[in-house]
Parts: sequence; structure tokens; C-alpha cells
Amino acid sequence: MNKTAVFPGSFDPFTIGHESIVERALPLFDNIIIAIGYNVQKSGYFSIDQRKKWISKMFENQPKISVTEYSGLTIDFCKQKEANFILRGLRTSADFEYERAIAQMNKAMHYKIETVFLLTLPQHTFISSSVVREVIKYKADASLFLPKIIADDLKNIN
Amino acid sequence: MNKTAVFPGSFDPFTIGHESIVERALPLFDNIIIAIGYNVQKSGYFSIDQRKKWISKMFENQPKISVTEYSGLTIDFCKQKEANFILRGLRTSADFEYERAIAQMNKAMHYKIETVFLLTLPQHTFISSSVVREVIKYKADASLFLPKIIADDLKNIN
Amino acid sequence: MNKTAVFPGSFDPFTIGHESIVERALPLFDNIIIAIGYNVQKSGYFSIDQRKKWISKMFENQPKISVTEYSGLTIDFCKQKEANFILRGLRTSADFEYERAIAQMNKAMHYKIETVFLLTLPQHTFISSSVVREVIKYKADASLFLPKIIADDLKNIN
Amino acid sequence: MNKTAVFPGSFDPFTIGHESIVERALPLFDNIIIAIGYNVQKSGYFSIDQRKKWISKMFENQPKISVTEYSGLTIDFCKQKEANFILRGLRTSADFEYERAIAQMNKAMHYKIETVFLLTLPQHTFISSSVVREVIKYKADASLFLPKIIADDLKNIN
Amino acid sequence: MNKTAVFPGSFDPFTIGHESIVERALPLFDNIIIAIGYNVQKSGYFSIDQRKKWISKMFENQPKISVTEYSGLTIDFCKQKEANFILRGLRTSADFEYERAIAQMNKAMHYKIETVFLLTLPQHTFISSSVVREVIKYKADASLFLPKIIADDLKNIN
Amino acid sequence: MNKTAVFPGSFDPFTIGHESIVERALPLFDNIIIAIGYNVQKSGYFSIDQRKKWISKMFENQPKISVTEYSGLTIDFCKQKEANFILRGLRTSADFEYERAIAQMNKAMHYKIETVFLLTLPQHTFISSSVVREVIKYKADASLFLPKIIADDLKNIN
Repeated sequence: MNKTAVFPGSFDPFTIGHESIVERALPLFDNIIIAIGYNVQKSGYFSIDQRKKWISKMFENQPKISVTEYSGLTIDFCKQKEANFILRGLRTSADFEYERAIAQMNKAMHYKIETVFLLTLPQHTFISSSVVREVIKYKADASLFLPKIIADDLKNIN
Repeated sequence: MNKTAVFPGSFDPFTIGHESIVERALPLFDNIIIAIGYNVQKSGYFSIDQRKKWISKMFENQPKISVTEYSGLTIDFCKQKEANFILRGLRTSADFEYERAIAQMNKAMHYKIETVFLLTLPQHTFISSSVVREVIKYKADASLFLPKIIADDLKNIN
Repeated sequence: MNKTAVFPGSFDPFTIGHESIVERALPLFDNIIIAIGYNVQKSGYFSIDQRKKWISKMFENQPKISVTEYSGLTIDFCKQKEANFILRGLRTSADFEYERAIAQMNKAMHYKIETVFLLTLPQHTFISSSVVREVIKYKADASLFLPKIIADDLKNIN
Repeated sequence: MNKTAVFPGSFDPFTIGHESIVERALPLFDNIIIAIGYNVQKSGYFSIDQRKKWISKMFENQPKISVTEYSGLTIDFCKQKEANFILRGLRTSADFEYERAIAQMNKAMHYKIETVFLLTLPQHTFISSSVVREVIKYKADASLFLPKIIADDLKNIN
Repeated sequence: MNKTAVFPGSFDPFTIGHESIVERALPLFDNIIIAIGYNVQKSGYFSIDQRKKWISKMFENQPKISVTEYSGLTIDFCKQKEANFILRGLRTSADFEYERAIAQMNKAMHYKIETVFLLTLPQHTFISSSVVREVIKYKADASLFLPKIIADDLKNIN
Repeated sequence: MNKTAVFPGSFDPFTIGHESIVERALPLFDNIIIAIGYNVQKSGYFSIDQRKKWISKMFENQPKISVTEYSGLTIDFCKQKEANFILRGLRTSADFEYERAIAQMNKAMHYKIETVFLLTLPQHTFISSSVVREVIKYKADASLFLPKIIADDLKNIN
């Protein structure tokens, strides 16, 4: 059976924390689908297209990784993609409590789905999309927290 | 002295986690008032009327339980109902920190009010109204997480 | 049905935090059994007899309260005393995680046993028997943290 | 080198918890700048002017303390004021996780900035501006949680 | 490359929580080595031989699983077995903090080792070897928390 | 008034995490006393003399820092040294809960004592003396986690 994992998130924007999780999870899975969840009501800071373009470019040489958007419940998306694993990074114990509720809910609704957790690296623990967004909004330099492709692109924009 | 407890919440919707707390707390109190807090600014997902109708029907054969809505501070509602106890369920340590702040605030403002906590059952730990609402919004099956009366009613609606 | 609660602990020594929990729980129950758990292997700092004498004296005018020692599993003691409630105080979220495991274990082994939690008062949050013991060991003044009867007695000893 | 600390917050309103942190931090620093962060999008409950007036009046006899508003990133404000310290109060472990992320982010962006934490007093642990605001909104008495100057002023308003 | 995971623990005794983690992790790995860590100083409750016999019997029909004991650092054992993954179950946020420290330490010492976490099922959250041991010590029935093979064996012993 | 801080710990051994806290705290205080607490009952892994020698050598060119051992309560030691501050590092939320209890206890017993917290750097979060000791015990290389002087010395010993 193919080992396919969905890595869901809003990735607004994708950070070096996300990048590290995907790269370290690669040896575990045959395919990883980076799935950008969107919400019709909330538009986000960067457009879905922009986020997708950035992440696709980052992993364009990695055939095991695909990037797509989705709406609705994550487990419905997993079923549709025939993915039995959800991949998530864990940073803090606050994270943990939240992630546990979501993962247990998913498992209650679809028994075969298993959520697999990797830890963020210590030096990435404090990096979250929401804080990075704040830095970008105030025109400060967020390149320490962003994959090179995104950081370079933002410099050109500003 | 009559032992009256207020069980406050937004119950949008009431879940099997809430149901279990109320049933297990029944032997402790003479009366339990399930108090649906509402906020003039936020309308919620289900109407107050709908929530009240559902909860009332669930406990219609249980004379110790009444259901009502309220706005304003919970302790003011308690005073008005001459209730000396607030009943709350605890699920996680994140819950705990939040509940502790509220309970200590209430006690500081009205010394006689005691908040009594029961634990949610292990299999209910991950169930919260907000996540269940998400499931309902996307037309997925939330009946695992809802009291039978509510689950049946939602099936008829969809 | 009689509402009997067991308040288990090692109470080595009983602190003002324990005292406050018992007093605030009194209106909820018909009887509270303060149950000093002991362990044949570990003798503790104060003798079981000493602990029992202190607690008994504190509540000698309170007919709803009895004091006893026990060994073995708390739920076996509850069954023997026909007590359906276990009373516990909660101080911090570390406490909470530990207490939740014990309470859920107890409920899994004996479904009728319900653990009821009250919060320690904010000003008692940091008081634990183990830290108070440390203070006593070094001959410092622990009377701020101890019921008057115990504090007075310790002054006479020193 | 002058030891200047920035104490940033929205202080909507300033509580006795904030007051205690500032007073206890005074012996550590040569200057403390109480910095009211504002957000063009969110107006807050009390106006920036009102908050500033209250805090200034509280500390008008304390030459080491100044009060100002700022927008943008806290570290940019610190650089502009040549302040190497950020002062923060810690109440709970939920607080801690949040504060740690912010402090580590700040340090990553500006290595010289050190965040110094003091604990709120046990009896202030549950006091937060957001809960106090709730009490004020419902015309209940919040004077237990507010510095005298603010409490008195609010009584005159109501 | 072969995907080999080490599942380290003292397993004194192996519980249904451990069993569930191993079974749910099977689709992820080519081999899982259940590694019983022992400590020359601490003998444990059940002998290493007994623990090994039980676990081996449980998985005797599962060729991907082997059972062995080890002493010393877990990463040294991993290197020796050419295993790049450590498998761990997560129950609570207290667990999480502890597991994170260990996993980050391991990664700092041997960069290629990745710790993969699965969540215990909600109904297993409260089950730990130490509490189960307590139940067994007092001759109470621990069969709810133990794999059938171990539970049956213990009944014969008692 | 002189700003003197006591930095108490068992430092068995002193790690790069401790080193970083002391160095970053230096600008805040006029003197820092690194105080090695010892316990007559527990001898520790390295001798008090060895620990003291290492730490003294590390800071021999730093006149603001002194190193000493002490037994008994930390606040009694502070009073004796006329130190009004206790310096502590915070790593995780588990740490936080423990440190808060100790700090609030100290403040309750001696009102003038203020505990000042700095955060460990993200890359030091997982480093604790107890885990480093484990690494040393098994003859593995702990030099990543130790100040250079200690690491070099241990290599000579092994």
C-alpha cells in the first residue's frame, strides 16, 4: 500500500518550521500532499495562489511532494486522496493540546486515519505564521523565518 | 439549604460531553439550572431558542433540571437564582487554566459562589462545541458527538 | 442516598490549602472522610498517628467530618465506606494532569465513583505538603502555611 | 549604561496586576517606559488617551517611569528608545508559552534585547484586562481589580 | 533504505496503550524493535525476562516486530541497530514536555535520528505502567489495562 | 542600593544553559552569587568541590560573579548575603509551574525577595543537568551541552 500523508495548514505564509517538518518526514512516506486549507469567509493575508506558487516552487525538484488547496474537513480531503496519514508538527504544549483534539476527532470520524507528529526543531519553536505575518505587516525583516524563495520574493515586493 | 447549581455555557450546540457532566452531577445537587449565556453582539450558529428547545427536550423527564438563557455576568445570574454553585466540566489543561481564572474571578466578586468541577470522560475529551459546529457546517456526520435528540433533528434538517 | 465523600491524601502535613478545600466542600456533602493514605514502605515525615491527631482535633466540632487512615487502592477504601465521591483540590495545570489520570483510572475500575474537584484559593496555590515539610526541616517558620493547631504544636516542639 | 526597560501592553485597562509588576520591577531598572501598544484596526474599549492619562496619573510622582503609546513592532520601539530590556509579568503556564514565543522572536530579531519576567502575585493570577473589561461592560463593580485612580474615575462615570 | 523504528520503554508492564501504539505504527515502518531499557541499579517490578517473554508472545505472529532489551543511551542502541526512527506515544501535555526534551537531545547528539509520535487513543490516556503496577501490587484487577496474554498470566499467578 | 542576585541550583553539572542565563543577566545586576545548593542526604554525581572549581574557573575574570555553596532554605541564604533578587532560568511550562510555586513561597516568607526570570535560549531548552548527567554516565559525548572548561576536563578524566 502506498504511504501517502497529507500535511494540512493555512501556510499564510509557509515558514522554515514547516519546511523542516516536510523535509524530515520525507523518508517516512511515499508521497506528501501539502494541502493549503482555505475558508470562504476568511481571505487570509497572502492569496491562496501566492501561497501555492511559493510552496510549489520550493519543492519543484521533489517528485514525492505535491501542493494543492482544499476546503472542507481535512479527513474528507484525505479520503478523496486515499491518504491514511496526516502529518503535523508539534512546537509547544499549547500546540499539543489543540492538535490532540483535532487528531482524536479525525480518528473518531474515520478510524483508518492516523496523525503522525514530528517535533519542530528547538530553534524553530517560536516561529508561527501569525507572528511572521505581523513582522511582514510592519515592514520588518522576516527573512530569518522564511524559506529563501519566499524571503527573496518579499524583498522584491517591498 | 437547597443545593442549586448553575451550569453555564453557550452550548452551541450541547454535546454528549455536556450531557455526561449534567447526568453525573445530578446526585450532587437538588437543582441544576442549565444556563445558556448569550451575547447581544454575537448571534451564534444555532439560535438561542433552538438550543433551549433541544436541551429542554433532553431533560424533560428530569424535574431537577431546568433550562434558561441569560446575559450578563454569570455570578449576577447565580445571585438572582440563589444558586451557590457553578458546575463546570474540565477536559484539558488548557481548559483548566481558563476555567481557573474565571472561577477565581467569580469567587473574588462573590465569596459564597463555589465552582465545582467534574472531568469529562476520556472518550469525550476532544469534543467541543466549536469543533462539532465545524463538522456540521461542512455537512459531515456529527451524530457521534451529539445527544440523540439533536442528532436526529439535524438529520431531518439536512 | 447519603452523600459521602472521601478526601484522600498523605497530609504530611495537612496545610491551610487542605483545610480550605474541606471547609468549602462541606455544604456539598453529608459526610467527608479525611483519609490518610499510608504506604508500608515509606514512613513519611510525621507519623500517621500525629497527622491523624492533628486533623481530628481541627475538626472535632464538625460532626460531618471523620478522620481515618487507609492503605491500598483509594477506590477499594471508597467501596468499603460506601462513598460515591472522591474530593480533590486542584492547584495548577501540572496537578490537573496528574489528578485527571488518577480520577479516570478510578472511574474505569469502579464506574460509580465520581471525583469532584474544587480549586485551591489563589493565595494557596503554591502551598504543598512537600514544600512545607522542607521549611519545617530547616527550622524556618512554616506557620503561614499551616492550620493554627498544627503551627502552635510545632512551635512547642521546636 | 542606563538600564531602561519597556513594559509593553494594551493596558485596556491597566490593572492592579500591572501596577504590582511595575512597582516590583522599579529597583531593577533606571527607567521604565510603560508603552501602550495600539493597533489602527482595533480601537479597544478605552481610548488610548484615557489609558495614558490614567497610567500617567498613577505614576506622576515616580520620575523613573514614563508613559507613552506606540504602534508597530515592540523591538523597533525598544531600539528607538535605546532600551535593552523588555519587562513582562507571568501569570499562568498558558501565558508562559505565549510570552516565550514572543520573547524568543524578539531576541532572534534583535539579539541585544533581553526580556525580563516577574511573576504576578498569587492573588493577582486570575486578573486580566479582558476579564476586567467584561465586568465593567456589565456595570458590575471592578474596583477590586483596578488601581484606585482608575476605580474612582469609573465610579464617577457610571 | 529500510525503515526501522525503535520503540523504547521500560514496559513494566506493557499496557494496552503500548500495544495500540505499536499496532497503529506498523503500516509506517518495515521493522519495529520493541526495546526494553533496563538499568543496572533499578530492578523494576517484573523481571526483564518476564517482560520480554510477554511482549514476544503478543507479537509472535508479526514478523516485522522484534523484542529485545538494552541498556545505555537509546541513540547508541539505535545506531547499533541501524534504526533511524524512534517511536513514541504521547498521552498528555506533561508527557509532551518530557518527550520533547528527550527527542531534541537525541537529535542534537545524532542528527539523523527522528522521533515519530503517535497519540494514545482517548480511552488509553490515563493508563501508565506505574499506575497499573500499583493496581497489581494491591491485588486488584488490572485486566482492563493489560493485553490479554499478560492479564491471563497474572490471573494464574494470583 | 547594591543589586545582588543569587543564582541558586545544584549545577550537577553546570550546563551551557546555566552559563547563558548568567551572562545575559550580568547587565541587570551589580553582583551575581552562583549558589550551589547541597543536601546532606544526597551526595550528587559530581562533588560540591568539583562543581565549585569548574564554575569558579569559568567566571574567574568576571569580578561581578562569585561562587559559593549553601545548604538550607534559599531565602535564608539570600538574607545572609543581603541579596534581594533570585535569578532563575525558565525553559518549559513544566519548569514554569514548579518555579512559580518556589518563587511565590519565597516571597510569602520574605516579602522583599523578588525572583527574576530569564528564558533559556531556544537551542538550550532541552538541556538539563539530569539528562546531561545521563549522557556522561554512559560515556557518551556531552561536550555539546557543557561549558568548554568542563567539557575539556571530562575528556581528560575519561
